[in-house]
Amino acid sequence: MDVEEILEGIEAKKRTYLARAISLVEDGSPLGREVVARAFKSKKNAKVLGITGAPGVGKSTLVDGLIGKLRERGGSVGVIAVDPSSPFTGGAILGDRVRMRSRTLDEGVFFRSLATRGHLGGLSRHTAEVIVLMDAFGFDYIVVETVGVGQSEVDVMKYAHSVVVVLAPGLGDDIQAIKAGILEIGDVLCVNKADLPGAERTRKELEMMLGLKEFEGWKPPVVETIASSGEGLDRLLESVLQHQDYLVASGLLEKKVRESHHAVLVEYVKRETLDKIMEKAESDGTLDRILRDLVEGAGDPESGARALVEKYFGTTI
Amino acid sequence: MDVEEILEGIEAKKRTYLARAISLVEDGSPLGREVVARAFKSKKNAKVLGITGAPGVGKSTLVDGLIGKLRERGGSVGVIAVDPSSPFTGGAILGDRVRMRSRTLDEGVFFRSLATRGHLGGLSRHTAEVIVLMDAFGFDYIVVETVGVGQSEVDVMKYAHSVVVVLAPGLGDDIQAIKAGILEIGDVLCVNKADLPGAERTRKELEMMLGLKEFEGWKPPVVETIASSGEGLDRLLESVLQHQDYLVASGLLEKKVRESHHAVLVEYVKRETLDKIMEKAESDGTLDRILRDLVEGAGDPESGARALVEKYFGTTI
Repeated sequence: MDVEEILEGIEAKKRTYLARAISLVEDGSPLGREVVARAFKSKKNAKVLGITGAPGVGKSTLVDGLIGKLRERGGSVGVIAVDPSSPFTGGAILGDRVRMRSRTLDEGVFFRSLATRGHLGGLSRHTAEVIVLMDAFGFDYIVVETVGVGQSEVDVMKYAHSVVVVLAPGLGDDIQAIKAGILEIGDVLCVNKADLPGAERTRKELEMMLGLKEFEGWKPPVVETIASSGEGLDRLLESVLQHQDYLVASGLLEKKVRESHHAVLVEYVKRETLDKIMEKAESDGTLDRILRDLVEGAGDPESGARALVEKYFGTTI
Repeated sequence: MDVEEILEGIEAKKRTYLARAISLVEDGSPLGREVVARAFKSKKNAKVLGITGAPGVGKSTLVDGLIGKLRERGGSVGVIAVDPSSPFTGGAILGDRVRMRSRTLDEGVFFRSLATRGHLGGLSRHTAEVIVLMDAFGFDYIVVETVGVGQSEVDVMKYAHSVVVVLAPGLGDDIQAIKAGILEIGDVLCVNKADLPGAERTRKELEMMLGLKEFEGWKPPVVETIASSGEGLDRLLESVLQHQDYLVASGLLEKKVRESHHAVLVEYVKRETLDKIMEKAESDGTLDRILRDLVEGAGDPESGARALVEKYFGTTI
């Protein structure tokens, strides 16, 4: 398959071509990069929703429920589950298998999970690239879901226009720290498992924390859900769509799109600099030499890094 | 204060100088960088222990308990709590305040939390730099604790020689995905809250997953603890120390140290390339121009990234 064929297949909404393009991206192939660069210019401006939260909050069930609601309204949905687990037990494959069983026959839903592969990461860049591909395919909505609560999840959420942060009652005191971080990225806050003891307290704590901050224009609503029974899902979707309307009406959507392009650009510059330097230094033995110096205390990391940059770029900046 | 004064203060085990050096590092000051480069050469090879796990597993209590056990054995301990929360509600400061209250008068323990500051991250690099400073100070043990389960936590754990992954029963099905990822980095697996229902099942699942993998030399033990009562902490510490002995006896310690230097070097190369390019492009208006092209569909991220690299390095590689 060549670039033209794949792009035509995607434009014609053939799922096998989309799947193939995503695999090329995951493999880091030059063909995949070319497809993405070209597809970037035929974006159709899908609404990109992000859903994030700590393990155990019931995110999978919630995402499945939300997809159902979007389908009821006639929207097509591309889903990207970003999985921080490693190749060791094939986390992403597991995810593909056990998830979305109920929707495998629905042509309006396309599900794909992305996992960390190898040392150089690239998960965040791959997510951005799959969004571009799904957008070119023409999905009305693209849902990006992450498992985890670290910086890499926050990074991935930069690509979303509206972010739902999911919490659940009773996850202990570490959750305080998490809340602090995620409040900043959440456009809608969802307290799932609202039938469990402590849900009321979690909601009140969130509202108190929200009360400490000044908001211009949009104040994140706190929505209670019980994803397992579907309760609250309509309200949750309503809040998300209200946020989308707000972005358009306020002109902030353009800013969001710009920020997401910024995040993508950073990933690409990283590949053109850091990733390439480390690859070259590894293959030509320079890395070995520098690491030996570091271990022996004959060098320091700053001097080592500057020597590497100078070697491959001919200069430092 | 100049470099010499700070280094002398650290060598003389004066805590205020260590605290000052860490603040300089966090602020990204050139003085801080110079101190780290110099301190790197007077490392004393502290044992670096990493403790990680999802929110709600009781990690804070467990770390406090382990520190107590290390102190009973006469070891001095530097603790770094790596906090993924943002400046919005001052996550790290909160952590400093509420934690370690019981040990504030103990001269053998030094506690510091590090949080994400600003957009360019640097959390992982700062962690590495604080480890260097604490090592130069002469702590017997350095404990690095992270909140969260994403890629950035895995990155931070690269600096540790022995990693304890903490789990707790009843954190839902997302935990499956987490387990897959963390099993790879865990040298000791700890099932905390072992008095809760489901602890037995969590332990069995872990042992089953461990059974699927081949181990050379060291097979991660699964240790049950109840951190709140102190039960199992002796066994946990014993396992960690056995792992340290194993590293020394097998010659693997050198490999670990090398890997941790590799991770530090990557962080420094990132700063000398990606971070500097993005800073320059932002301040001279180039970034603006490229983002406008991306938003208007007149460019693609790959071409934009290559243009940036060429502009500041005069070439691409």
